[in-house]
Order: sequence, then structure tokens, then C-alpha cells
Amino acid sequence: MANTEIWHEITIKASPRDVYQALTDLEKLAQWWIPDTRGESSIGKTLEFRIGDLCQEMQVMLLQPNERVGWQPTETGLPDWTGTRVAFTIAPQETDDRASVQFRHSGYREDIAAFGVYSMSWAIRLISLKDLLEKGTGHPFPNEWDS
Amino acid sequence: MANTEIWHEITIKASPRDVYQALTDLEKLAQWWIPDTRGESSIGKTLEFRIGDLCQEMQVMLLQPNERVGWQPTETGLPDWTGTRVAFTIAPQETDDRASVQFRHSGYREDIAAFGVYSMSWAIRLISLKDLLEKGTGHPFPNEWDS
Repeated sequence: MANTEIWHEITIKASPRDVYQALTDLEKLAQWWIPDTRGESSIGKTLEFRIGDLCQEMQVMLLQPNERVGWQPTETGLPDWTGTRVAFTIAPQETDDRASVQFRHSGYREDIAAFGVYSMSWAIRLISLKDLLEKGTGHPFPNEWDS
Repeated sequence: MANTEIWHEITIKASPRDVYQALTDLEKLAQWWIPDTRGESSIGKTLEFRIGDLCQEMQVMLLQPNERVGWQPTETGLPDWTGTRVAFTIAPQETDDRASVQFRHSGYREDIAAFGVYSMSWAIRLISLKDLLEKGTGHPFPNEWDS
């Protein structure tokens, strides 16, 4: 069976509130994902993540403060991502200074050749998010692990 | 649809031969995966990865020098891993000093709650393998990103 969904989970020593902020604030997004981040994190608006000539737009579909964030890649970016959905679910842990981030990127067509590269790239970004929140410094794209 | 396979891909600035060695040599395995690694990397034999009381045995199913390594978790380890298969495929790149590692962990039962944690953990191990081969130091389990 082919894979159609990337599913990662990471624990971060940060409050659900701080995790949510890092997923919705443009400056924070730039520090853990793509340095050139523009747009607006509001329902129905789009975020723009720019890498050279590529502009990966994400339409913001869901904003549930401190709990969930959902994006839908638009057709301007990676063709493989058209029709997919990205979701971050923030699950509080025993204490409020720790949260688990459940990440899903769903709806891939079957047999996408670069699936493994996308999966690895998201994992690297989640480590970057964790390091940004725990140590103050992320590893935005592209970093030493991406090439 | 539930996920039943983890699939990651990472590029490493190392020859296919060095990558293969890191997947089959006990000392190297200990440096990027689990420090307490025992057993024998020969077809039909088992590798033992020990973490406290847990001993994750992997029966070695496939050894294709510089190209492929296949393991099958035995029933001694994580119950979620029983019946699954682990495969590393080493794909040479344009030049011989670079290889792409395609990793697959297949055959999970559907709806395993910890699937995302396993996926993330393997991604962290692949970064560890890359850093071991490129910089001489891996990040074996458990490291700062695992908790």
C-alpha cells in the first residue's frame, strides 16, 4: 500500500500557548520554517513561504487557539502538495510547560517519488521548532540537514 | 486511510560503501542508533539494541553490500513492531561521495497510537547517521530531541 500521509509527533518543553504562537506568528514561523515568510495568519487568508523563485502559499483553514492549526497548500507551490492538507495538533502534557505536537500532512496522491524527502523535511522542521522554543534558535530551511 | 509505513529519505555526503558500513558494523550502529548494540550482522542472525530493560532484536534478512539492508524486528522488543519490516536502500548520487538513504519501516497495523513518535524517532536517527558520517559524531538514542 502506498503512503498518502506523513504523521510525526514530537514533545516540546514549552506551553501549548507558546507552541501555538510559533505556528501563527510570522516572525516565529520565519525562525523555524522558512526565513522569508509573508502573508497573514487569519482564517481564509494565506501565508507565503518563499524559497528563491518558489512561493509556497498556505491558505489558513483552522485556528483553534493553543490547540490546532490547519493549512491548505494552494496551487502556487509544489505540485505534489496540491490537494493536500497540513495540520498541527497541540496536546498538553502532564504539566503546562510541555506539549506534544502531532503533525499530519495528508491527502498525498499515491506513489509520489519525493514522499520520503517531504517526510524527512517536515521532521527536520519539527526539530527546528523544538529547538527554537527550547533553546531560542531554530534551523530554518535550508539548513545543514536538508542537503 | 491509516498509515502503515514510515518512509523517509535523506542525502548524506558519504560513499554508499561508508553508509553500508554504518548500517552493518556494530560499533557504527552504536554511534548513531543505540549505544548498547550487540549481536551479529549476518543473514539470519540477530542484532540486539538495548535500552534499559528493553531489548529490541532485529533479525538480519537482507545484506546487499553498499545497496540494501533489511531487518525484521523480533517479538522480544516493541509489541507495535512485531510483524513489521525495516529496510534501508542506498542510492548513489551523481558523484560517489554522496548517497541517498531511502528508509522504510513497513507493515504496521493500522491506527498504532505511537506511529508519529516512531516516525519522528527514525527521522532523528537518520539525522544522527548523517552527522556521524559527515562530521564524525552521531546523536544516538536517547538524545535531546527524543524527550
